[in-house]
This record gives sequence, C-alpha cells and structure tokens, in this order.
Amino acid sequence: MTAFDDLMAFQRETEALAQVAGRLGWDQETVMPRGAAEQRGEENAAMEGVLHARRTDPRIADWLEAAQPEGPAQQAMLREIRRDLDRATKVPAKLAAEIARTTSLGHGIWAEARAAEDVAAFLPTLERIVALRREEAAALSEGGDPYDALLDSYEPGITGAQLDALFGAMRPRLVALRGAVREAAPAPALEGHFAEEPQMALTRELALAFGYDLSRGRIDKAVHPFSSGSGQDVRITTRTQPDDPFNAIYSTIHEVGHAAYEQGVDPAYLLTPLGRGASMGVHESQSRIYENQIGRSRAFTGWLFGRTQSHFGDLGLADAEAFHAAVNRVADTYIRTESDELQYNLHVMLRFDLERALISGDLPVRDLEAAWNDRFEADFGFAVDRPSHGVLQDVHWSEGLFGYFPTYALGNVYAGCLEAAMRRDLPDLDAALARGDTGPATGWLRQAVQRHGALRLPRETIEAATGEAPTPEPLLRYLEEKFSALYGL
Amino acid sequence: MTAFDDLMAFQRETEALAQVAGRLGWDQETVMPRGAAEQRGEENAAMEGVLHARRTDPRIADWLEAAQPEGPAQQAMLREIRRDLDRATKVPAKLAAEIARTTSLGHGIWAEARAAEDVAAFLPTLERIVALRREEAAALSEGGDPYDALLDSYEPGITGAQLDALFGAMRPRLVALRGAVREAAPAPALEGHFAEEPQMALTRELALAFGYDLSRGRIDKAVHPFSSGSGQDVRITTRTQPDDPFNAIYSTIHEVGHAAYEQGVDPAYLLTPLGRGASMGVHESQSRIYENQIGRSRAFTGWLFGRTQSHFGDLGLADAEAFHAAVNRVADTYIRTESDELQYNLHVMLRFDLERALISGDLPVRDLEAAWNDRFEADFGFAVDRPSHGVLQDVHWSEGLFGYFPTYALGNVYAGCLEAAMRRDLPDLDAALARGDTGPATGWLRQAVQRHGALRLPRETIEAATGEAPTPEPLLRYLEEKFSALYGL
Repeated sequence: MTAFDDLMAFQRETEALAQVAGRLGWDQETVMPRGAAEQRGEENAAMEGVLHARRTDPRIADWLEAAQPEGPAQQAMLREIRRDLDRATKVPAKLAAEIARTTSLGHGIWAEARAAEDVAAFLPTLERIVALRREEAAALSEGGDPYDALLDSYEPGITGAQLDALFGAMRPRLVALRGAVREAAPAPALEGHFAEEPQMALTRELALAFGYDLSRGRIDKAVHPFSSGSGQDVRITTRTQPDDPFNAIYSTIHEVGHAAYEQGVDPAYLLTPLGRGASMGVHESQSRIYENQIGRSRAFTGWLFGRTQSHFGDLGLADAEAFHAAVNRVADTYIRTESDELQYNLHVMLRFDLERALISGDLPVRDLEAAWNDRFEADFGFAVDRPSHGVLQDVHWSEGLFGYFPTYALGNVYAGCLEAAMRRDLPDLDAALARGDTGPATGWLRQAVQRHGALRLPRETIEAATGEAPTPEPLLRYLEEKFSALYGL
Repeated sequence: MTAFDDLMAFQRETEALAQVAGRLGWDQETVMPRGAAEQRGEENAAMEGVLHARRTDPRIADWLEAAQPEGPAQQAMLREIRRDLDRATKVPAKLAAEIARTTSLGHGIWAEARAAEDVAAFLPTLERIVALRREEAAALSEGGDPYDALLDSYEPGITGAQLDALFGAMRPRLVALRGAVREAAPAPALEGHFAEEPQMALTRELALAFGYDLSRGRIDKAVHPFSSGSGQDVRITTRTQPDDPFNAIYSTIHEVGHAAYEQGVDPAYLLTPLGRGASMGVHESQSRIYENQIGRSRAFTGWLFGRTQSHFGDLGLADAEAFHAAVNRVADTYIRTESDELQYNLHVMLRFDLERALISGDLPVRDLEAAWNDRFEADFGFAVDRPSHGVLQDVHWSEGLFGYFPTYALGNVYAGCLEAAMRRDLPDLDAALARGDTGPATGWLRQAVQRHGALRLPRETIEAATGEAPTPEPLLRYLEEKFSALYGL
C-alpha cells in the first residue's frame, strides 16, 4: 500500500460515513417520527463528531505529503481532500460547535418570527449568527476577503468581486426586461383544483422521462422538495399543491436535475472526493437546465400539455401555446422559490448584495429589513407587503448559510452557457423534446458535465463542457428572446 | 467532570451512533433502492468500524477503573459497559473481520441453496462459519464452555447446561401434548382471500390498541416483520399474506411487544446502556406475551373476532369460539415462524440441541441434515419432506447466529411466568381483554418489566417482576390447559 492508497482507503470510509449522515437528513424530512427530534439531535451531533475527527485526522497531512498521484483524477482527489482538511483545521473546534448550536436554534426562532410577521424577534439571533460567521470567515480567510472564504464552501475558486461584476452586468438588463413584461398584457394563468394522486403519477412519469434511475433512487413526499445522496442511493422528494400542479411538476424536474447529476457521475469515482457534483453552482446548472431551458421550453411544453391533459382532463387553457405561456407566466409575486425564470435572478442578486454587506459589516443587521424593502421595490416595481414576503421568506440566513445564495444565479448563468453549447451540438433538440424525448439533452449533459463529478473546479467544469469561458450573455439572450416572444415586446 | 461522567458522555455518543447504524438496517429492509446494495455494504462496514473503535477505546478501561458509581442504575451501566468491552477486546480484530466477511456471504449462499433445495451447496459455508464461531467462542470463553460464551451475547448469565435442564424437563410434556392434539379432531381453519388494505388498517388498529406510540415509531411493510431502534424512534414492519390475515395480525402484535418494551424504558435511561431491553430472552417474553397469552387468549379473540369481521365481512367461521380455535389451530406444519404456540418450543429445542452439538464438535456439519430430520420426526410425529421445510428453513446459522435460538423458548418460559404473576395481580384482566382493552395488561408489563430496561440481568428482571425465580411450570400449565380445552383432551 502506498501513501496514496492508504489515504484513499481512509477517505473512502469517510465518504461512506458522510453518506450515512446525509441519509439521516433524508430520514428526518420524510419518515422520522415527530417525537424523535431530541434523540435525532444527539445522533446527528455524534455523526458530525465522527466526521469532524476524520476530516482533521493528523495522518491526512502526512499522507498528502507522501502521496504520489498518477493522472488528473488522482490529482483532483488530493486537491479536494487538501481543501477539506485546510478548511476543517482553520476553524477552532469551539467556534464550530458554537456555530452549530446557534444555527440549530436559529431555524426555530426564524420559523416563529416568520409565522408572527415579527422581524424584531429574529434580529438578535441573526446578529449572533452573522457575528459567528464573520469570526469563522476571518479564521478561514487569514487576512483575505471574509465573504470569499464563505463562498468557497459552496463554489470553490470564485470571489465576491467576480460575482459583483457578473451580477452588475446582468441586473440592469433583467430589471429592464422585468419592467417591460410588467407593462405588457398578462399571460393566462392555470386555475382549478388538481387532485394529489394524478399529480404524483405525473411527477413520477416526468422523473422517469428525464432519466431518473429509480433502481438507485426513490421519490417520497416532503414539506420541501430536495435531492440527497450520491452514488448508488440518490433520493428526491416532491410535494403537491392542490391549486397549482406546476409546482409539483417543476420542482420534481428540478430535483431530478440534481439527482441525475449525482447518478451520472462515473461509477469509478464512487465514494471518492470526485463522486459528487463539482459545486453548488454547477449542481444548480443541472437542476435549472432540466427545469427551465428543457422543461419550460416551447418544444417540451407542447408534449407536456398533452400529458397534463391526460392526467387532469381539460385544463381550461386553449392550446399548447396558452399552456406554454401559463408555465412561464410572470406575475407580481414576492417569494423566490415560487418565482419565474426572469425574476428569480433578481431575487438572488438582492440577497447576494445584502449578505455581502452584512459580512463586511457595511450593513448593520438592524437595517436589513429596510435595505431589503428598498431594493425589492427598485428591482421588482412593487412594494413588499409583509416580512414573510420579504426579509423573513428564506430559511438560509437562519441556518447561517452565507455565500450560498449567489450559487443559484451562477447556476442559471452556467445553465445558459450549457444550453447554447448543447443546441450547437444538437440541432434537432427541439424535435426530440416535442416528442417528450429528453434523451439527447440529458445524454449530452451526462457526457459534458455529469460523468466528471468533481474532477475539475466549477468554472473549469463549465469551460470543458462548452469549450469556452462562461459569461452571462447566453442566459441573458435566452431570457430576452423568450420573454419578448411570450409577452410580444 | 468525574471519570463516571466522562465515560457516560463517551458512551452516550456510542449509543447514538449505534442507533444510526441500526436505522441503516431499517432503511435497507424497507426503503433502500435495490441498486444501492454495494454502496450500502461499504456504509455498514464503515459504521461498524467506527463502533468497534469506540467499543475498544483504551480510555474505557481507565474510566471504568476510576469511576465511582452511585446507586444501582449507575452500577448497572458500568456492568454493561464492562461486559461489552470485555467481549470486544477478547476477539482478535482479524477474526472478527473474517466472521463478518464470511457471514455476510453466507446469507446469499444459504438463500440460493434453500431455493434449490440443495443442502450440499450450503454445507462448506456452514462448516466455515461453525469453525469461525468455535474459534471466537474459544477466545471469549478462555477455557470455559464455548457455547456458553456465544449464548452470553444474547442472554447474559445463562448457560447451556441450565437450558439443557430446562428444555429437558419441558420436552416430554410438550411432545405428549403435541401427540394428543394430533389424535384429536382438527380445529377449523380460516379460508378465503383477504385484501391488503383492510389487513393493513386492522394491523394499525391493533398496534394502537396494544399501546404502540406512533409519535415515536412508524409501521412500514417489509418482507420480514421486525422491530428496530430504541428510545424515541422504535419502528416496526409488517407484511400481509392474501390467504392468511392471522399472519399480519399476530406478527404485528408480536413486533409491537418488542417495540413497546423499547418505548416503555424509563426516559432517564435514553442513550445509556440501560436504555434497551435486558436480553433477547426478556425481549421475546414481551413480544410473545403480547402475541400469545394476551393476543391469542379466549377473551381477546372474542373482541378481535368482531373487529376482524368489521374489516373483512363474514369470515366463514361460525362464532367467536370457532375464531378462537382457528387462531390457535395446531396443524402438521414444518416452519418455525408459522408455528403455533405448542409446536414452536419443540422447534426451538431441536435447534438448540443441534447447534450446541455443532459448537462442541459432537455433531459434524455433514451429519446435520440427518440429525435434524430424525429429531423432527421424533418430536412432531411426521417426516420432513424437503430441506426448505427442514434444515434450510432458518436464516440464523447462515449469519453465524449460534446461541440465539434458545432465547425464543426462554422468552416463552418467561412470558409464562409473567402471565401467572399478572393474572394474580389483575383478577379482572379477561373482562378488559374481552372489551379489546389491553391497558391493564400492557400497563402491568410496563411497570413490572419494560420501564427498567437493562437495569437488571435477564433472570433477575423476571424475578423482580414476578417475585419468584422463573420456572417452566406456568408455561407448561398454560399450554396444557389451553390446548386440552381447545381439542377436548
């Protein structure tokens, strides 16, 4: 056994334990008895303790020094292990424990404050969480930019300044497009009551149509849709809303995008540091291209219109064109997770600017709500009517997730780049989608992106897939063409 | 922090991790995608590695030496930890790994051999497993009786010689009773087709009627019924057979007995070495008294007859008496798990004698089938017709579980003792059961047995509950009276 082999054998067990810990999370959201929360907290903490001890095991540094990797895959494995070790050892154990304790309480306090529309009740907790994350960021960045250090957890290699430039170039065009759509005649909306059973049947059909492999996954109901796990056991959840089957349809396709990425990784990378998506941003590029560029395309919605009718009967929409317009309807809504493709990015950019200012210290927590409401009205053209529609709408900050939001918009940018390259390579793509055949698209994504797992850094992953450096231009052009056509601009 | 506190904090994490490992087993049998088996094997092995390292942690011996326990509960916690450490350190890691590897393969080889009715295909594997277990038993027993050392994993404090004397006293009376029943007129049998949905609804109703707490548990379908978990998360599974609703009914009540024991332990013992059942035998006493002495009693079946009719309509059985006779029907069957109360103990005694002879070396593995068939005909009065009805019927030996079988019959003996004491204390028990009210019975068991968890050794647990040393007399009397009445002997 060489040092490399020893390290990889150790790492393999760590990866397996991380899968177990992740599955505990799945269990908690789907099947856990409600009276088990206290015990589950201790189980989670014990698993975290085991994983932390392994990630900071002193032998890893020795193995890393002695290991002689052969080829790019082995080099990439060492890169990922080195990165994890570096991050795990820089944060003092006491601080990590304090963050875990505070954020685990934060969730409940946020949920209560949101239900009561009471921002003030959440602020002391948020102040504490921001202070702890700033302390962590300082430890991680060692004098560099603190926000960049947090970003690095989710999107290795990108900086706040790069995102600022990227989003700064996008925002005026998106605001202008949003304004023009708002002036135009509204799109038709779907109305009615849609039973749960056909919704579940249709989402299952769609998951299979998008290549989700049920022999290595499963679909359950949960309050929030999510995908979890890597390798041979990648599970998704879905939910249904009686007045809006599009919610179940598109959240399922979204989660299938995430799951297909994990299922599509080269089996040779199973339980190695490469056996998962390259970053949150690249992950989101897969979920968003499945959901939007493919799932909400004119071609695919033409087929979906027929499938939806066959499950629910007459939808009250005249034809496939009206269905396509309803699927892509832009309306005055407040909530990011229910947002259309156009407004979604504006939501994310708002959060990015605010959280970056919170971490830098430029924005005091007490001024957050006012800053949110001002920015929202400027970008969306109407005012926030209550905190649960504004600053209290997302769970992320209550769990200490700073640096996570921008990966959502970055994923859209990456999805735009991937779609442009895919359409170059697949001139007959729309003909296939119009038959409900996603095979060419998902096959292209598997070859170009998914099978490589975390072999390359995020930006390099997209560059290798498309042949050029990612820019926001394809996404912006796609959105402008799509919504101009839909709204006759 | 005292040494005792340090030890208990460490142990608490170990207990939490053991719960996580146990839940992986639940997941595997209920919801795991079929393509995840290989990865799951690595996950299980990694969790086992973590648990083994903790159970043999060198600090435990130091803590045990320095700890100053206060009161019987703390003394009992140290007793359990000392026992685990002792067993874990006596078996060489290499031997433990070899046993794990061989027995994990053994299951598949046994299943194929059983399907093919091919004993010879299983014998080489069984020989290897017996040899490995004998080696382990020698390491554990340090010159004492090897079989006793294996028994100690499941039933601390009992010996093969004690069981031999116990079973030796029981067997002639059971064989005589079995023979007399075989001469009598057969009991009515239930016939027909019973849909899955009402079977599931009825089993759920029964689980709740027996006090199963769904806020700290759940019921799922699985190929084999089982109960898993301790503390706040104790789950059971059930199965349905279209031609036999008694299977679902009584396997559910059985598993509820196990689960109620775990759910009934004093919450102060959560995630401590006392926070679970005292032994396999005491566990089985709870599942069997729920299933048989309560669930198959004349009083309870009178109520169950009505409930069953309300779920399935007319059963083709004239009245509650016929229903009670059908529930307790003795027939010429081969399979332990489908066996009535009377024949069940004969099944277990057969396995006990054979496996004890295998471990002592008195019975060569190649002679096992002949020994099984001879003994079966002697005790049951008819011949085994094929290996899957005989020596290949049980999974236990393929998984290396030697010393486990006798706890089933020991559980019946303990259940007999508990029933006698319970009926002394609760003269109106049958009136409550006739109304479907199990509360007095399950309440008595919770106070007498369940809440104490592993505070006392198994035999002492029963003695404390009943006020006298356990003997087989109550069980034998109960069986003789019950089946004499049912078969007019």
